[in-house]
Amino acid sequence: MGEKISMLKKYLLTPGPTQVPETVLLEMAIPMMHHRTSEFESIFSEVRQGLKTVFKTDNDVLILLGSGTLAMEAAVINTLNDGDTALVINGGKFAERWTQLCSMAGVNVIELKIEWGEAVDPQDVKKILDETPNIKAVLMQGSETSTTVYHPIKEVAEIIKGRDNTILVVDGITSVGVHDTETDKWGVDILISGSQKAFMLPPGLSFISLSKKAWGMVDKNSQKKFYIDLKKERKNQEKNTTAWTAGVSLIIGLNKVLKMLLEEGLDNVFNRHKINALATRSACTAIGLKLLAEKSPSDAVTGCYLPDGIDGKAFVKFLRTKCGVAIAGGQDQLDGKVLRISHLGYHDLFDTITAISSIEMGLVKFGADIPLSAGVKAAQEIFIKYIPEK
Amino acid sequence: MGEKISMLKKYLLTPGPTQVPETVLLEMAIPMMHHRTSEFESIFSEVRQGLKTVFKTDNDVLILLGSGTLAMEAAVINTLNDGDTALVINGGKFAERWTQLCSMAGVNVIELKIEWGEAVDPQDVKKILDETPNIKAVLMQGSETSTTVYHPIKEVAEIIKGRDNTILVVDGITSVGVHDTETDKWGVDILISGSQKAFMLPPGLSFISLSKKAWGMVDKNSQKKFYIDLKKERKNQEKNTTAWTAGVSLIIGLNKVLKMLLEEGLDNVFNRHKINALATRSACTAIGLKLLAEKSPSDAVTGCYLPDGIDGKAFVKFLRTKCGVAIAGGQDQLDGKVLRISHLGYHDLFDTITAISSIEMGLVKFGADIPLSAGVKAAQEIFIKYIPEK
Repeated sequence: MGEKISMLKKYLLTPGPTQVPETVLLEMAIPMMHHRTSEFESIFSEVRQGLKTVFKTDNDVLILLGSGTLAMEAAVINTLNDGDTALVINGGKFAERWTQLCSMAGVNVIELKIEWGEAVDPQDVKKILDETPNIKAVLMQGSETSTTVYHPIKEVAEIIKGRDNTILVVDGITSVGVHDTETDKWGVDILISGSQKAFMLPPGLSFISLSKKAWGMVDKNSQKKFYIDLKKERKNQEKNTTAWTAGVSLIIGLNKVLKMLLEEGLDNVFNRHKINALATRSACTAIGLKLLAEKSPSDAVTGCYLPDGIDGKAFVKFLRTKCGVAIAGGQDQLDGKVLRISHLGYHDLFDTITAISSIEMGLVKFGADIPLSAGVKAAQEIFIKYIPEK
Repeated sequence: MGEKISMLKKYLLTPGPTQVPETVLLEMAIPMMHHRTSEFESIFSEVRQGLKTVFKTDNDVLILLGSGTLAMEAAVINTLNDGDTALVINGGKFAERWTQLCSMAGVNVIELKIEWGEAVDPQDVKKILDETPNIKAVLMQGSETSTTVYHPIKEVAEIIKGRDNTILVVDGITSVGVHDTETDKWGVDILISGSQKAFMLPPGLSFISLSKKAWGMVDKNSQKKFYIDLKKERKNQEKNTTAWTAGVSLIIGLNKVLKMLLEEGLDNVFNRHKINALATRSACTAIGLKLLAEKSPSDAVTGCYLPDGIDGKAFVKFLRTKCGVAIAGGQDQLDGKVLRISHLGYHDLFDTITAISSIEMGLVKFGADIPLSAGVKAAQEIFIKYIPEK
């Protein structure tokens, strides 16, 4: 068999950056405009309104020009002072970033360690808060991308809601636009997201909303900050402009994306993620790949363990270079052991089928004894339930 | 189950227009240039060379601004005079176009009728030519898109090669770039193709090469023609320009496409089509869909019969509107009875898996008793053989 497949397309099925719809790319390709103009301010005003709708908050959702990590740093550095104490719900790599940020800011960190793959038990949060009354902030993830877990934001928020001196800070980078988040109703004080996830854009923008309680802490904050001074940013964005240079093309793209999401309907957007997640999990189970997050999986990304003896790094590289399918491997302690298959953002049923069928073919190539197409069948059985009738 | 899939991508899996690679679309989006410039002439010169390589001919391959039908008309009207006799190998809808064109031109047509789904037997051509010595041209298809048959061009050419007063005219619209065609070596006097097929471009360009024997007939031709006067066109194109306005953006795209095809390697391009065709045929058989062309199938498009009782028109519409997958139904006598699944042009293994998995899900939705995922499995088994080793 001398003949081999000679042309591959590129399938981006990683949990961020995610695929950008062609219509959005085209919108971003309109001629550049200056950001200090009424033309841009009018777009910015629409975007602000759209973000509030997606974030389900009446508060401003500020737009920063930088990745999600910038917004995480802004959350810490604008609310927590040197010597304050914070509780970090640490169940994965991105949770560790909260600890790193707090340490950098001189904030004392209490870590509630969660086994990778498990979700936090809200009662454990309650216990620590009850025992340690001076905790200023609880920092957590919505969807922990490294472990593919969804944490119960609503239940944790309930515990914090009545505590006047404690705020809940949620990294919703891979959960906003995936799992419904009732920011105001639940009492999420700070919610963060990023452009290259469910917002279907290139990386470059991050979003942050703050409750009145959180703004109260910002007023009392004395940390050094300049680019991520949220008070300054709010003052500008209330007037539909930005403190520093705006990410013009990304914001033009965001305006298009928000219209698309709202036209699809937020509940449909959440269902779309849920259906692809259900199909992916069902497929993994059908081919004997144990799920990483069995009890509380994220609908943004599905993690599964590779069969023993398969080198995950080589496997992920094989899929990318020999099949054209980019899916993520494991991070840190899961490096080389797991696959993380995204269904985040601009991702449809055939993206899921592409992911599953490529993994099946790859496993056979790597010598694993798996039932070829059993995963595709399991996914098809889920999809058939959700494809509209003829 | 109130929740339904709310976002579909568009998968174009029809036998033309075919998908256009993003890199080609971007190339076509460079600023418009005038065609009477040295800049454009230099591009045109590269394109002429590339087309000769793909057509495997030392003769000029003329570029016309119009669809494949224009080049078919040019072939007839430039070589056959009023009252001439031509033999049309008629095994499908596109073959019938040769008959229509000849009739329009006042050419007497002898039709060699072939059952739809069957390929021509070259001995039948020989028999007619031997019995009817005044036949000026034999007109045929390489790949007959309506019946998904590949006709044996090489064997028919062999029969015509020694006959000085007869030319072989091949509509290679869906076979050039799919099946290897040794134009000069085999003795194909006129070969035609179009941009929206294996050339991975939008519709708008057609290509036509003529042998010395064919040019000899052009010299003796007295039909009325203006836009498709091939002698005038050749005179211009030899100087890297066109008789009439050139299709600037399409030709810029063609230059990119030709570089891509030659970089991939023509043998690899043919293999790519062959592998996807093998996988598609194997998948159809696995789910019990009888192939339309069993003995001599085209590698451009696979045809299969739908199970009894399934309305093909409704089925194709369902796939397009509820799954986002555009595949073709039947034409004329096969209307409503067959599916035609393309693997033509910019099409990779996951396009094939998308086609098959969508057809499987559709059949289940339409109440057919088929083994879900059996087709995908059959395709995967083919692909596994051709995916390069890890």
